[in-house]
Amino acid sequence: MRTIKLTLAYDGTAYAGWQFQVGERSVQEVLETAIEKVTGTKARAIGSGRTDAGVHALGQVAAFRTESRLGVEVLRRALNAHLPQDVAILEAAEADGGFHPIRSARRKRYRYAICDRPVRDVFRRSTAWHCRCGLDAGAMHRAAQALVGTHDFRSFQTQGSKRRTTVRTVYELPVRRGDGPDRHVVTVEIEADGFLYNMVRCIVGTLVQVGRGNRAESWVAEVLAACDRRAAGPTAPARGLCLLWVEHEEGAGEQGSGFRVQGSGE
Amino acid sequence: MRTIKLTLAYDGTAYAGWQFQVGERSVQEVLETAIEKVTGTKARAIGSGRTDAGVHALGQVAAFRTESRLGVEVLRRALNAHLPQDVAILEAAEADGGFHPIRSARRKRYRYAICDRPVRDVFRRSTAWHCRCGLDAGAMHRAAQALVGTHDFRSFQTQGSKRRTTVRTVYELPVRRGDGPDRHVVTVEIEADGFLYNMVRCIVGTLVQVGRGNRAESWVAEVLAACDRRAAGPTAPARGLCLLWVEHEEGAGEQGSGFRVQGSGE
Repeated sequence: MRTIKLTLAYDGTAYAGWQFQVGERSVQEVLETAIEKVTGTKARAIGSGRTDAGVHALGQVAAFRTESRLGVEVLRRALNAHLPQDVAILEAAEADGGFHPIRSARRKRYRYAICDRPVRDVFRRSTAWHCRCGLDAGAMHRAAQALVGTHDFRSFQTQGSKRRTTVRTVYELPVRRGDGPDRHVVTVEIEADGFLYNMVRCIVGTLVQVGRGNRAESWVAEVLAACDRRAAGPTAPARGLCLLWVEHEEGAGEQGSGFRVQGSGE
Repeated sequence: MRTIKLTLAYDGTAYAGWQFQVGERSVQEVLETAIEKVTGTKARAIGSGRTDAGVHALGQVAAFRTESRLGVEVLRRALNAHLPQDVAILEAAEADGGFHPIRSARRKRYRYAICDRPVRDVFRRSTAWHCRCGLDAGAMHRAAQALVGTHDFRSFQTQGSKRRTTVRTVYELPVRRGDGPDRHVVTVEIEADGFLYNMVRCIVGTLVQVGRGNRAESWVAEVLAACDRRAAGPTAPARGLCLLWVEHEEGAGEQGSGFRVQGSGE
């Protein structure tokens, strides 16, 4: 039995999320259908994390086990030929039997895009949150730095979700305004050792309060310290969110790292 | 009677093109429907040029005449509220009665995007042409410079189209590869005093022959000199094409210039 590690991109607009759901179209389901068509056998594809309905990925990592002897490049091409146009396998590799997309994950990076001009951007209507009033990206960036480090992020998770611990380490949290034709797009990137449920979207909803001038920069540190979801801003909509990459432990997966998509463009 | 000049963006994916066509969804039709809803009167909206089915715009210019006394900003917002999400009015301005989007047009710029990595880009599936083999963007750029200047562009128009003259002046024709997350995207921009039917798509189809190494750089000058469509490469697909901006004569339109979207990003 071989373990195949896949790195995949998808436009989540038409999906009810990564995870299989009865009666809904999920990325996991279309991937498993393609795997069955290519290998002739049903297999469970496990993703590195569930992305919600409407959330995108440039570097999701998934794995499945198969008896197929097809080479990884042949597999990759055959899967792409059987997947819909809004899902694509970027890389396929053979992984150690011990590789597990969730348990071996060490670090992830997400990007959240906000369009902040009054008029909508017709090309970003499913990949960015449209905030009609202008944002102070510099203030958002400064405020966000209070979240970098190891903290209890309980204030930034959807209430009622159950995790063993709500402590996570955020390595980087840059907020930037694009330039040239992207000057109306503010991106928030968050790299951490793990994420609580809706953590990025809660952080973005909170930072936008600062960007709009509704709250002082120092407020974000207060929200963090409160350890209470009610202290934070609203949850930002799913469509602005994109999973950029997932990094796995050394020795887990063929090279221990996912396909990394750097930078903040599309 | 006032003449209102509109600058608009649209994702052309769901449209049969700019121009009204019986039984088809066109940008002109949805715009005229919005104008009627907002002003209470039917009006003809004239565009600066027809874009074909699947072609996009970041700065199309259109005009219509109305008895409405609504201020231009109120008009702009009301039209946006009545337009579908894939069309947006960026600017509305009062123009001279003599302003005509086609006759007053002096200069236009188009951008064509090509994705040239083996795997499809799920986020560009309706805004870029997917060429699976890598392109030499430098060779394409050098070859393209033979087209800059005033020439008979007959080789680069769809056969059977009738124009008074096939001579046009191309001011700029840069071919560039993106960087960072856009390094798999090659863009061709063409700025000219006017365009023949399918001229950009014929030029791109020809330049791609050079980028793939099928033809020498010097071949593009030969195609131009041939004055024969059969000498050129195939017509590139519509979805990679976007009208960036249209510039009008001084005194035509309120400031004589369209809303210009610079650069090559989205």
